[in-house]
Amino acid sequence: MDIEKLQNEKYAASISSIKEAQLRISPHIHRTPVFSSESLNSIAGRKLHFKGECFQKGGAFKFRGACNAIYSLGHDQAVKGVVTHSSGNHAAAVSLAAKLRGIPAYIIIPKNAPQCKVENVKRYGGQVIWSEPTMQSRESVATKVQQETGAVLVHPFNDGRIISGQGTISLELLDQVPEIDTIIAPISGGGLISGVALAAKAINPAIKVLAAEPRGADDAAQSKAAGEIVKPQKVDTIADGLRAFLGDLTWPIVRDLVDDIITVEDKEIVEAMRMCYEILKVAVEPSGAIGLAAVLSDEFRKKTVTKDSANIGIILSGGNVDLGVLWDSLKSSSSS
Amino acid sequence: MDIEKLQNEKYAASISSIKEAQLRISPHIHRTPVFSSESLNSIAGRKLHFKGECFQKGGAFKFRGACNAIYSLGHDQAVKGVVTHSSGNHAAAVSLAAKLRGIPAYIIIPKNAPQCKVENVKRYGGQVIWSEPTMQSRESVATKVQQETGAVLVHPFNDGRIISGQGTISLELLDQVPEIDTIIAPISGGGLISGVALAAKAINPAIKVLAAEPRGADDAAQSKAAGEIVKPQKVDTIADGLRAFLGDLTWPIVRDLVDDIITVEDKEIVEAMRMCYEILKVAVEPSGAIGLAAVLSDEFRKKTVTKDSANIGIILSGGNVDLGVLWDSLKSSSSS
Repeated sequence: MDIEKLQNEKYAASISSIKEAQLRISPHIHRTPVFSSESLNSIAGRKLHFKGECFQKGGAFKFRGACNAIYSLGHDQAVKGVVTHSSGNHAAAVSLAAKLRGIPAYIIIPKNAPQCKVENVKRYGGQVIWSEPTMQSRESVATKVQQETGAVLVHPFNDGRIISGQGTISLELLDQVPEIDTIIAPISGGGLISGVALAAKAINPAIKVLAAEPRGADDAAQSKAAGEIVKPQKVDTIADGLRAFLGDLTWPIVRDLVDDIITVEDKEIVEAMRMCYEILKVAVEPSGAIGLAAVLSDEFRKKTVTKDSANIGIILSGGNVDLGVLWDSLKSSSSS
Repeated sequence: MDIEKLQNEKYAASISSIKEAQLRISPHIHRTPVFSSESLNSIAGRKLHFKGECFQKGGAFKFRGACNAIYSLGHDQAVKGVVTHSSGNHAAAVSLAAKLRGIPAYIIIPKNAPQCKVENVKRYGGQVIWSEPTMQSRESVATKVQQETGAVLVHPFNDGRIISGQGTISLELLDQVPEIDTIIAPISGGGLISGVALAAKAINPAIKVLAAEPRGADDAAQSKAAGEIVKPQKVDTIADGLRAFLGDLTWPIVRDLVDDIITVEDKEIVEAMRMCYEILKVAVEPSGAIGLAAVLSDEFRKKTVTKDSANIGIILSGGNVDLGVLWDSLKSSSSS
């Protein structure tokens, strides 16, 4: 059976839905640049190709999935708007994509969310609706909004349209740098890595696909080891975008197509952020810099799966960090 | 008389020497990306096209001029090496270009220079030679090195080969974004703006060329007003790359071809750096961010010369800043 057909039958997304997503979203998204640094190549001992999703609209790859989901809606459905209860880059992406399509976006935000995230949503035209700071309250407020407005829920990762949108990164990256033999992306709920893996493996099954995960939120590594979704009791990492758990639609793809998961400490993430700033000259948030942290880690060097990796695509997945937060992390990292 | 001939007769560089420079250096330099932001366009009320020289090798445009000067040398001259007594981005650029050509670079550095600048030079293979922290000592040490080694002095700006190298930015930028009607670049010794103006005006004399200068080091603005080179007694600005005065080779070009000079306060420069980081996601040093500061200034909005400017090319000239310095500037700027 060919890969395309297999993917269509087994998973919530596939190379076909990713190619459709590319056609659908390409008029709206940035084709982000790929860049490199000889200094970092020599530190890593391999060629590193950085896919700059920090330059994506909204400052993160999330806009691809949000755009695909929102432009997939039929007119009658779309006019009622969309709703989500993520407060991070996905919320900003949904707000922006909805604004482009000219429909309302209702964003449920817990009362204790950082002000900058609230501002981001408002700046992109999202309507902020407050909830209590529990997942239960967020979900019940979202349900209420859906009932009152008829808006469609756009989940941040556990949704085939989202996975397909994120997968367009692989199509672009492999077109920009065809010699890539390994791709590494952050993993949280698994939407990004699922799309990336589906597209990359369909284009060339020999490409290694790796996920990078913070040690303090290593549910994906634990899940891979256990062979089933594991949800740790406690999550503690500076990478605020990587605290979610795998969903039932992303898990099978991660299980089958992600070759390995590299876990890194927060201090390695902060050091990678600093390198992005001082060497690559690019602003990358903690969740976005984890791929570089993973490639430079001892764990990566010891892996058998990557021993022949010569051209590594690293997805710098987002750049939304405010300078104060970055500085505080650097200070606490250097004093620890 | 045509512009090319006029430039050849009147100035130390011309569109012909700039095109030669482009052929000479293009195998060695990065063709840097141009990017934009709808948020910044809407703040400025015009389309802004950012030329990312912070992504140039060595982290700044200086590599273009250094490369052109060093690859212009005949073999017999080149093998004896090059010497310079600038300690900033030019020193790093000369070190790197000399390393590429496989010749020695002697870099005179005053004993009180910041450690990071010394490290930069060493990282790129330059040989550090210490001087006392006075211009007199720097120059006498440089002369001594020239006499002992036969090395060629590569001046940071007052040199036709340097001006020609920097001018290649205009060739690239106008090829990347042909609709540009206005270009703004920082001014210090005048090497960058001279090259940029010579090339832009030769391609299209209607293009406006503006220089951005810190209020605390506004010798170029004073010189333009006086009609002759003025060297203020005191220089005080956060933009450490913009503290030099015009030279006798750059002044005539600035006098004749730069349409206007916009002066900005240090706090406007720091705010522009923050915008580069948080909106463009790019690390830009104070000297590199001044073009954006100028375009967003009240002075710019009031100028007659720019009232029809719709597509502005802004040269982000360098990205070499360490995070601690950036943070300290932001703190002192917000508390002042």
